[in-house]
Amino acid sequence: MEYQDLLELARDRRSCRRFRDDPVPTEVIDKILDIARYSPSAANSQPWEFVVVEDFTMKRAISKEIVSVYKEAKERDTTFNFKAAVQSQLFRAPVLIVVCGDRRLMQAYPTLLRGRELLRQSLAICAYSIQLAAASFGLATAWATVHWGPPETAVKRLLAIPESFTVDHIIPLGYPDVTKEKRTRALTQVRERAPFRRELREVVHHRGYDITKYRSDK
Amino acid sequence: MEYQDLLELARDRRSCRRFRDDPVPTEVIDKILDIARYSPSAANSQPWEFVVVEDFTMKRAISKEIVSVYKEAKERDTTFNFKAAVQSQLFRAPVLIVVCGDRRLMQAYPTLLRGRELLRQSLAICAYSIQLAAASFGLATAWATVHWGPPETAVKRLLAIPESFTVDHIIPLGYPDVTKEKRTRALTQVRERAPFRRELREVVHHRGYDITKYRSDK
Repeated sequence: MEYQDLLELARDRRSCRRFRDDPVPTEVIDKILDIARYSPSAANSQPWEFVVVEDFTMKRAISKEIVSVYKEAKERDTTFNFKAAVQSQLFRAPVLIVVCGDRRLMQAYPTLLRGRELLRQSLAICAYSIQLAAASFGLATAWATVHWGPPETAVKRLLAIPESFTVDHIIPLGYPDVTKEKRTRALTQVRERAPFRRELREVVHHRGYDITKYRSDK
Repeated sequence: MEYQDLLELARDRRSCRRFRDDPVPTEVIDKILDIARYSPSAANSQPWEFVVVEDFTMKRAISKEIVSVYKEAKERDTTFNFKAAVQSQLFRAPVLIVVCGDRRLMQAYPTLLRGRELLRQSLAICAYSIQLAAASFGLATAWATVHWGPPETAVKRLLAIPESFTVDHIIPLGYPDVTKEKRTRALTQVRERAPFRRELREVVHHRGYDITKYRSDK
């Protein structure tokens, strides 16, 4: 794998909320998850398991449940600033990959370290691997982080996920509907419109932190 | 980028603790960090900044400080099960990439969600991007998670990292010393000895969680 290819893959990986109806072949889903298996994890615990959801009724139920849980939270706390934009569109994707983590494996982690955070970081890396692997098939993805109590409980109930598991992420997956995403530009041009990124020189320091690059609290 | 290339890259990415002395060209380091910039992050906050450490005295100081902090922890708490194996070898790598996170950006995250965990997962993904990008240059890496109070404080002091930043990970980077790693096999054969991974069928469920695949508490 050449550097340039990886750079283009990382840049092309973009969030997409509107997908074409075309189903994603099972062997493609398997290949994507096969790459996810090779993600690094704390103590090589490989805490991930995946629930693949293609059934429309189930996808819609997941989407509705999460959104209603967030709505309730907003009613209780008006400072709650979360727009469940990705969550409300989950049912539009042909495939949802639900990334779960086996909390029991936290026993393998060094004591004193924050086990929950090590589990979280392993599962986030795994979800990113899914996104990269999907991009290598020309598939688009989105990312819904679930790990806050009420939405997680709702998804676990719907998918009969055992108590010892967390549900951290849901990755919607499918062929992008470029028209619906109001993108008339071709895929090759997407690259030029990669999302905003800070310049490299602003974030790299040599030897020690260069305080002249420190951003004010603005 | 073809799927097969990404699969091989993900499999080839391996932990290595013994590196050749050859320095890593600055433009290669920059290219690696350029890919890391394209990692996804919560609310596209891009909380990462990188301190590149090549100075031997500094690398040794970081290594020593972390190890001594862990030793103290072990003396206080004999149940502490952590072997600072990677940490004690940090000075052997030609380059250390210290991955820091600006905690102030947690303000951009949805309230009610656990900001600290969203920050952690963004930084872990970024560290993995560094590893993948390094692998695309034939470079080997290791991974030292720092995010526990005392080692983090030690590293921040040594590198003059501002208070508002966390230090989450240190990625040692260099050309692998295959002989010292007691690997006589060539790089192409490494692939066949990829680290243990659970089988795909064990971790994939369709429609809902398949309880027949649930592992006992063994």
